[in-house]
Amino acid sequence: MKIRTSRPSIRVPGFRFGSATSGIKKSGRPDIAVVVSEGPATAAAAFTRNRVVAAPVVVAREHIKAGHARAVIVNSGNANACTGTQGIAITRAACALAARALGADAGQVLPCATGKIGVQVPRDRLLSGIRDACARLSPAGFWRAATAIMTTDAFPKGGMRRFDLAGRQITIAAMAKGAGMIAPDLATLLVFGFTDARIGGVALRSALRVALAESFQAITVDGDTSTNDTVIVLANGVAGNAPIASGSTAHRRLTATLTDLFAELARFVVLDGEGATHCVEIVVRGAPSERAAARVVRSIANSTLTRAALHGGDPNWGRILCAAGYAGVSFDPGRCRVWIGGVPVARGGVGCGGERAAAQRMRRREYGIVVDLGNGRGAARLLTADLSPAYVRFNSTYST
Amino acid sequence: MKIRTSRPSIRVPGFRFGSATSGIKKSGRPDIAVVVSEGPATAAAAFTRNRVVAAPVVVAREHIKAGHARAVIVNSGNANACTGTQGIAITRAACALAARALGADAGQVLPCATGKIGVQVPRDRLLSGIRDACARLSPAGFWRAATAIMTTDAFPKGGMRRFDLAGRQITIAAMAKGAGMIAPDLATLLVFGFTDARIGGVALRSALRVALAESFQAITVDGDTSTNDTVIVLANGVAGNAPIASGSTAHRRLTATLTDLFAELARFVVLDGEGATHCVEIVVRGAPSERAAARVVRSIANSTLTRAALHGGDPNWGRILCAAGYAGVSFDPGRCRVWIGGVPVARGGVGCGGERAAAQRMRRREYGIVVDLGNGRGAARLLTADLSPAYVRFNSTYST
Repeated sequence: MKIRTSRPSIRVPGFRFGSATSGIKKSGRPDIAVVVSEGPATAAAAFTRNRVVAAPVVVAREHIKAGHARAVIVNSGNANACTGTQGIAITRAACALAARALGADAGQVLPCATGKIGVQVPRDRLLSGIRDACARLSPAGFWRAATAIMTTDAFPKGGMRRFDLAGRQITIAAMAKGAGMIAPDLATLLVFGFTDARIGGVALRSALRVALAESFQAITVDGDTSTNDTVIVLANGVAGNAPIASGSTAHRRLTATLTDLFAELARFVVLDGEGATHCVEIVVRGAPSERAAARVVRSIANSTLTRAALHGGDPNWGRILCAAGYAGVSFDPGRCRVWIGGVPVARGGVGCGGERAAAQRMRRREYGIVVDLGNGRGAARLLTADLSPAYVRFNSTYST
Repeated sequence: MKIRTSRPSIRVPGFRFGSATSGIKKSGRPDIAVVVSEGPATAAAAFTRNRVVAAPVVVAREHIKAGHARAVIVNSGNANACTGTQGIAITRAACALAARALGADAGQVLPCATGKIGVQVPRDRLLSGIRDACARLSPAGFWRAATAIMTTDAFPKGGMRRFDLAGRQITIAAMAKGAGMIAPDLATLLVFGFTDARIGGVALRSALRVALAESFQAITVDGDTSTNDTVIVLANGVAGNAPIASGSTAHRRLTATLTDLFAELARFVVLDGEGATHCVEIVVRGAPSERAAARVVRSIANSTLTRAALHGGDPNWGRILCAAGYAGVSFDPGRCRVWIGGVPVARGGVGCGGERAAAQRMRRREYGIVVDLGNGRGAARLLTADLSPAYVRFNSTYST
């Protein structure tokens, strides 16, 4: 989808951003990003739940255990997944190189990668790219780094929020990449958040958990869960605030701000879905439980037929109820109601007119679909993209 | 996919086939089929597991409880799903009308429908179509009936098998429709089997269960499970054989023959998948259990990204392992092996060359993919179609 997002100047006290072009991407576009905190930062992270994980995920999971980090290093254009012990060795070498350049321990460097699965990373290119990026660190390098982590993304995704805490200004910025292989439980998604807030590991991890549930865990483009998904938040404490304690008002503010920022970036990811022309919020309510609602909303959002109908602006509510029906959740179809773009199209499980008006609403780039199962108070929502012929064309020859 | 299937003359002693054009299909093509057994036939059936089921499924489930039936009546062009009590009333009226025409009870008539969800069936057209079809019953009407049950199908699907049982010739014929909304646990699939064998309900149901597991339960086109799936087998005993007892040699022969026939029709359904250009058999083996293998093979076969790669002939085995990885089954990626069209492309979880040769094999209309998880003896297989831009185009405006 062609969308323009503004690129405000983004700086976070105590963080520097570097990027480089290593040649890993055949296109010759930037493919290395390094983000460095001037001192050790509290670190929290979440990773893909796929059983098949990339080498950088294996190493980053090890390193995050310390609870603090100095840097994030990223290469795009190669996922370094299904690359065996060689992929792991190359990742460790990259961390060691970055650590030397920054005067840190290798264990304080969190590695990430995104791109094609099953191809060995060219070691020399990766290492020289990391070296170059470390030599070009700048407080003003945010957007160049956000561009360097892109693969099939049409535009870089970033944002910033500021708020006051007892007279201290706190800054939070985040960048994300992702366009295909997007499913709940993350996606082919890299998300990096940076804040100058002072906060301990427990409180930061809980803020991240809440923010993710409301943002990147609530989107789907194609239902494919990738091997590389990584979300990292670093908090370096440069703002000098009193440490933010779990459950405090300050903690709620930080969590809400991070959630708001992540939700904005998650929406960008769906808007940028490969071949997507619409971003549709699907809400399921009236389910026997939250869990049941989540199952139903995923079944609808991942239905190939429903997503094809979204592409064509076809108010085919029967397919929506059909997808709800095979989610493995018990409900009475005779109590279901469906709205498309705010227009009621089904009531008591049968059509109630409205298709023509709904088809009009479906021309909008963004709209909502609500399914009320009439069987409880459980609710869940997801953002999804439509499925277009362009998506299929694009992905039918990705690696050739 | 353009394929020609031969249309051998198909007759089953004691069965007559009728069809009609009622106007339910806007195209003006035949949309009513009736199949009648000259006497009460032992009947076995299987239905969709979707929670949202069409009116004819509700009624057929009631009628099948008797264990015997005289007729199957079908309309295409309208699913009669999400049509509430009115849809049920129209279905009961159609059964009663057919019963009167045939001198049977309404409870001996099994109704089916396929087409768009959420639109009321035009009652008068349905009833006059059923009346017309009942007036045109013929032992030679098999292919006309098989054509009348089609919706998006490109060609009618039917077949016949004969075998000897202690000097008596037994005939089994079957017809199927289905092209989209095809997933394991049936599909938007109607399948009707007819045999002149004498067999009781228990033995017939067990034969059906085995045949389904190896055929229509082992295919997927788009992972969408429909509201209307119905499989019915009628056995009218006209062959005069000694009743086939469960577990006997005769029972094994009948089961094997039905399985073979159903597998042929299931393959036709995948070959006829909307927009499909390839029919790919995916085998997962080396899984900790059969159940685990089944989960992994479905995850691969329903992966949008994998199916797009099949369309482009892209030997992207990384996506295949990635889809295996999010199936919720525990395995060690480092022990995985993958073959595409018989060519090894990954071993020990990493690439082993072979992509070029595999890409050649992927040009074939039909080929296989084997994934060995190296972690047990569980195995499962599925036939799947590729995902093409034509599928999305077709389904983006199905109802408009």
